This record gives sequence, structure tokens and C-alpha cells, in this order.
Amino acid sequence: MEVIVADNAGFCFGVKRAIKMANETLDQAHGPVKSLGQLIHNPQVVTSFQKRGLEVVADLDQVAPNGTVVIRSHGVGPEAKRRATELALRVVDTTCPFVTKAQQYAAKLIEENYKVVVIGDKDHPEVKGVVAHTDGKAIVINTAAEAEALKFIPRMGVVFQTTHAIGHVQEVVGALLKRGKEVRVFNTLCGATTSMQKTAVELAPDVEAMVIIGGRLSANTAQLAEVCRKVNPRVLSVESAAELDPAWFAGIRLVGVSAGASTPDEVIAEVVERLTGIEEPATSA
Amino acid sequence: MEVIVADNAGFCFGVKRAIKMANETLDQAHGPVKSLGQLIHNPQVVTSFQKRGLEVVADLDQVAPNGTVVIRSHGVGPEAKRRATELALRVVDTTCPFVTKAQQYAAKLIEENYKVVVIGDKDHPEVKGVVAHTDGKAIVINTAAEAEALKFIPRMGVVFQTTHAIGHVQEVVGALLKRGKEVRVFNTLCGATTSMQKTAVELAPDVEAMVIIGGRLSANTAQLAEVCRKVNPRVLSVESAAELDPAWFAGIRLVGVSAGASTPDEVIAEVVERLTGIEEPATSA
Repeated sequence: MEVIVADNAGFCFGVKRAIKMANETLDQAHGPVKSLGQLIHNPQVVTSFQKRGLEVVADLDQVAPNGTVVIRSHGVGPEAKRRATELALRVVDTTCPFVTKAQQYAAKLIEENYKVVVIGDKDHPEVKGVVAHTDGKAIVINTAAEAEALKFIPRMGVVFQTTHAIGHVQEVVGALLKRGKEVRVFNTLCGATTSMQKTAVELAPDVEAMVIIGGRLSANTAQLAEVCRKVNPRVLSVESAAELDPAWFAGIRLVGVSAGASTPDEVIAEVVERLTGIEEPATSA
Repeated sequence: MEVIVADNAGFCFGVKRAIKMANETLDQAHGPVKSLGQLIHNPQVVTSFQKRGLEVVADLDQVAPNGTVVIRSHGVGPEAKRRATELALRVVDTTCPFVTKAQQYAAKLIEENYKVVVIGDKDHPEVKGVVAHTDGKAIVINTAAEAEALKFIPRMGVVFQTTHAIGHVQEVVGALLKRGKEVRVFNTLCGATTSMQKTAVELAPDVEAMVIIGGRLSANTAQLAEVCRKVNPRVLSVESAAELDPAWFAGIRLVGVSAGASTPDEVIAEVVERLTGIEEPATSA
């Protein structure tokens, strides 16, 4: 098959930064280094770091006294950082700067007496971290229907999960306008995610199918597949080349590829190589 | 024909208030009383006030020294009020309280260093008055396309023409989210307009045609017709019963009626009476 890779596919600035910081930490560390949750939502990267000794832990208690803890790119709440300091841990904070901004806006809105609404997935670590910056007071919603079901909120402050699609937040903010008098929105969408979605959506109608590569837990990868599906129903999501089934591509000669922000270049290259090798069955002459 | 009149048709609180204030002023005035622009956008009401001596003037210079000036329900800028005071005029301000709120929010946003965007018709007196409350600094846009054409605005404050439809402002605010980092919206839609549109839109699909009554210059009447047209293409806008042409209703047995916020009950009653009298041509037996 012919393969076209969308511009902006793969690692974003925040992911590159988190990986670089984690690598430097491992290079320089004398004692054990732990990651509080998965550094980024990509299984290959997490496994590769595990092999180098970066164990994922769920709680700060699992970090040895005076050990080093790496804060994941999705961020944590202020309480986790306070506890790490109390435990005298060395903290390496890889929180994506765009996520830090969303946390700061949420904190500022609470401080200025707004009821904070986060448009995002309440179970995603980034959203949990943002909510933690409002002392847990923020409401999390993810759909226009959930927005319309809210009680009236006179002073509403709104931030977005950074990896959401613009079309999605436009719809939900529209619904929120019905539920608030003042609706003060900070557009906390990450520019890299927006660009990545834009180029993939531009490519998708021009190819017969799209393959989106990324971790199953990766929110930006899921959004990427979703925005593509709106313009081309034939979208396949995979974590790696191993998941590609030639049968799925029957009759397809031109396929587009994009990848979430946490997908390494090698994984993209493997998928592209594999796709290129898938041949149409020879037509009987 | 059968006629159903939508709930909330006709005079809103702000219009009733303006008419009451103008009447009281005329009752008590010793000298001449002028209206700075049309009190409300309804020709019958304006004409009826003119007969009682309330002349419409375009400029404060046309008010006699020490005379009385009535500020229209759509409001004016702060400069007009300052000049009226300088000219020692007696001012009767009938500005709708919902419009006053929109003016105050716009002024507050400018004071707090927001770039103000008004979603409305730049030629409408209400919008001109709101813009005047920002020292003329506000941008006026009325469509999503105009919003998308704006340059990036880091701190954007948004207010609406009070008579706009919720669906319309939702769409334009959605587009503004792409052009701003912070987008602070005050939902200045008037509740009466929203209720009036809602009941008319609920009625429109259940009737064969809708008749919308109101002044040609009335923004809320135009919006009312527009929201109805989205759910029933057969919508007729009239200012009075005299404009009803039985031919337009050929084949129609059930018609719905609503009226803009500045339409008097007598005008609605005349239209309903006229519509009720329109008979289907007798079918030849």
C-alpha cells in the first residue's frame, strides 16, 4: 500500500521534555528512581524506562526515603508535591507546561470565587491533577448533555483537558452558556494537539483509511482517532505494528497515518514499514 | 382558519416599563417632551405617542432648553447622558434594565483591560449604546465567520445584544474560542426574549404556518421570525393586520401567531381576528 504520514504525528514538545528529564534523572541518580504513575501514556516508552530501572508506583509511600520521584507529564495535585517534600524526596517534575497552565488557571478561578467546570475525562490523571488544584471543588463534565444538566451557576470558570478537540469544547461551552450568567473560559487546549488533529483531519478524506498509533490510555490519541472518524469512517487504532491485520486493509491502496503525542518515532516507522509491505492480493489474469 | 397564539407573545417587562414611564412623563410634564430616538421599535406605539406630543428627535440639540428628554428603551451611551445634564434637561431614562446590565458588563470588561466583543447588529441602537459604554473601543461582530476572521485576542470579554437567539450566540462564541486565550462571556440575553423564542419554536412545527407580528426595525421580532423559520419554513412577518393577504394562506387551516416584545396587545388581537376570518375557499360539492 501507499502510505502518507500526517505532519505533526508523534512526540510533542511536552512528551519530549518529559522523556529527556526522566533520562537525565536516571543517568545522574545514585539511588532508586520511581515514576508516580506512567510518565506518558505509551506502553513501549514506559516498558523501556522500566528496563532502565524507572519503576511505576501508585503512591509516594512506595518511594524509598530520600529517593527520587518523577512526576508524570500529566501532572499531579499540589497535595502530592507537598507530601513529597514532607517525605524529603527529590522531585523531578515533568508536568507538561500546558498542563501546568491549566492547573494555574483552575486555581486562579477558584481563588476569584468562580465555580470551576473542567471539560474532560474525570478519570484521566491530567484532569484529576487539575481538579486537585481547586481543592477538589471543580465539577468535571465531558458532554453538552452533562453541561445542560447542571444547575444554574452565576459565576462559572471553565478550563479544558489540554488534549480535547476544539469542535468538542465548542459544543460543550455552547451548552454551558445556558447554565451560567458569567462564563469565563480559559482555552487550555494544547497547540500541538490542535495542529496534530488539524493535519490528520485534512489528510483523512484523501485516503481510503487512517491508522492512528498510540497507547490505549492516551487521551490525545483517542481524540485524534475520533476527529478523523468524523471525516472518514475507516479508522484503525493500534498501539504497535504487531496489531496490524492485513485483512482489515482488503481493497485499500492508499492509507494515511498519524500518531498520538506520546508515540515514539520508532513505533511510527515500524507501522509505516509494515503497512507499506501489505500488498493487494494479485488479481488473477 | 384556526389560530394558536404562542405564550409570551408581545410586550415584555422592559417595553411595558418604558411605555409606563413615557406615559407618566407626558401626564406630568409642563413643557415639551422629546424622545431621543424611537422609544420602542413599534410604529403603532410610536405614532400613538406622537399624537400625545412625544416627538422623536435624533439629537439632544432638538430638545428645548430645560425641556424633558426620554431616553429610549434601547439605551444610549454615557456621553449622551452627560450632554443632557450639561444642557440642564430633565432626563427620563427608560433603558431596559437588561440593556443597562449589558452596558455595565461591557464597561466593567473595558475597565479590567479586556478587549470587548459585542455579538450583535452594529447598526442597532442598543448595540451602539453598549459600544458607547466602552468608549467606542468594542468590536461588533454578528456571525461565526466574522469571529473567525478576528486577529488573536489574549483577553476577550464578550456580551450579547439582549434580543439575540441562544443558538446564534452559541455558534459565534464557539468560533471566538479559537481566537482567544481567555474568553470571558457575560450572557446578556434577555430572559423574556429567550422564553418568547422558545414557546414560538415549540409551536411552529405543530402549525401549518407562523405569523410573526412586530415592527420592521425590531431586532427581537426579526430573531423571533428567524428561529421559527428554522423549524417551519412558512413564516410571515407583518407589522399589522392590514398587511395580511388571504392568498398567502391558501390551503392553510391552522396558523400559529407570536409577536415581538414591542408589539401591543391590540395589534396582536387585530391580527388574530383577521386570521380567524380568513376562510378556505368552499370546496365545490
